[in-house]
Amino acid sequence: MEAFSNRRTIRKYKQEDIPAEKLESLFFRASRAATMGNMQLYSVVVTRSEEKKEALSPLHFGQPMVKGAPVVLTFCADFNRFTKWCDLRHADAGYDNFLSFVNAASDTLLYVQAFCTLAEAEGYGTCYLGTTLYNPQGIIDLLKLPKLTFPIATITVGVPDEQPEQPDRLPHLAYIHDETYHDYTPNQLDIIYYVKEQLEENKKYVEINKKENLAQVFTDCRYTRKDNEAMSAGLLQALKCQGFL
Amino acid sequence: MEAFSNRRTIRKYKQEDIPAEKLESLFFRASRAATMGNMQLYSVVVTRSEEKKEALSPLHFGQPMVKGAPVVLTFCADFNRFTKWCDLRHADAGYDNFLSFVNAASDTLLYVQAFCTLAEAEGYGTCYLGTTLYNPQGIIDLLKLPKLTFPIATITVGVPDEQPEQPDRLPHLAYIHDETYHDYTPNQLDIIYYVKEQLEENKKYVEINKKENLAQVFTDCRYTRKDNEAMSAGLLQALKCQGFL
Repeated sequence: MEAFSNRRTIRKYKQEDIPAEKLESLFFRASRAATMGNMQLYSVVVTRSEEKKEALSPLHFGQPMVKGAPVVLTFCADFNRFTKWCDLRHADAGYDNFLSFVNAASDTLLYVQAFCTLAEAEGYGTCYLGTTLYNPQGIIDLLKLPKLTFPIATITVGVPDEQPEQPDRLPHLAYIHDETYHDYTPNQLDIIYYVKEQLEENKKYVEINKKENLAQVFTDCRYTRKDNEAMSAGLLQALKCQGFL
Repeated sequence: MEAFSNRRTIRKYKQEDIPAEKLESLFFRASRAATMGNMQLYSVVVTRSEEKKEALSPLHFGQPMVKGAPVVLTFCADFNRFTKWCDLRHADAGYDNFLSFVNAASDTLLYVQAFCTLAEAEGYGTCYLGTTLYNPQGIIDLLKLPKLTFPIATITVGVPDEQPEQPDRLPHLAYIHDETYHDYTPNQLDIIYYVKEQLEENKKYVEINKKENLAQVFTDCRYTRKDNEAMSAGLLQALKCQGFL
């Protein structure tokens, strides 16, 4: 597990396929992650075809990993399979609600991380696309996701063709709390974000975007209130359509 | 990573503490998991005191791991720290919405799984308590979680004092879909759930609960519609109180 400390997100991949058996072995081994009541409330849609990558690409805002990776994986919360089994057995499945969505999404994300850790231990590189939640309805339509399923995370996987710098992380005491949550004083925040704010790369972003500081790059350029609010509405609407609200 | 295939949930722990430096090292190494925009949208509240374990116990429905483990960890989605930093820098933080909750919860769950994998690789045993989402407001109050934070997962950790049987898992083709989601036929469901339904242990649950089959044990005893709907309402209410809805 030493390797985990050296991991970095990989966005550029060699033109080299991942054998189906290799992928299946990773899928199976990852399923040892914890899962609620051993229900395994997830599904994975595997995209290998150029046609589907082409169609997925704009839904992920054109991020080049989607077309550049040999394999794109859409990990979905899935209460459809379990509910269909219950229906078949004349059992009253009550999983068309918000708690069930969060339970299935939790199962899915634990599975995603287990998959990535295992894949990276075998020398593959992965990239987590958070954009999955930005336009879920488009992904639902394209991948034909039925009710009681929901796309949670997309991972691109391949043999690394780059070795980027490892990004900074906060000092761990920044997010560890003893017995109860201890809220942050301005002085503590100055310390916690000091390294991040001093990075040359981040200073450049501030300059390019003509902002006063790094926080404003996040709030005004990267993750704006307007976008977040619009996408929250779309996310809730999609949850309704998929039967979870 | 061979060890991952042999993992099992551990619910019984030796009376042996986890050194603080060991725990901190795990916290730090786990932070290499993917995180949205490198924001690290999580916090962990560490419970070691008997008093707090006593208080947490009923919130987790008296599951004995809470009082039996040397350490109980409550992993929380956290947009409070980032927002406070933005406020301090006069940046307009727009993270009091549903998308931001799901983003922070995603970060948190990837971090949880990375932590567990690393802890288990060092010989510790972990148990994931899904009950965190059943009564979030109680946990919020006890751990003094401020607005824009939310408890997502609780993990008990310790040196294993049991070696339980490894539970079954579905055949992996049950949840892998090629290019688009392929919905399940009754025949496929019979095959997928065959092993689970034939397990002696599960047959006993059906008998004890006087049900016709295993699916009904899930729907009528373990995870009922009535409970799910009541807890969904509580979960949404707590999300509102914490400023995410």
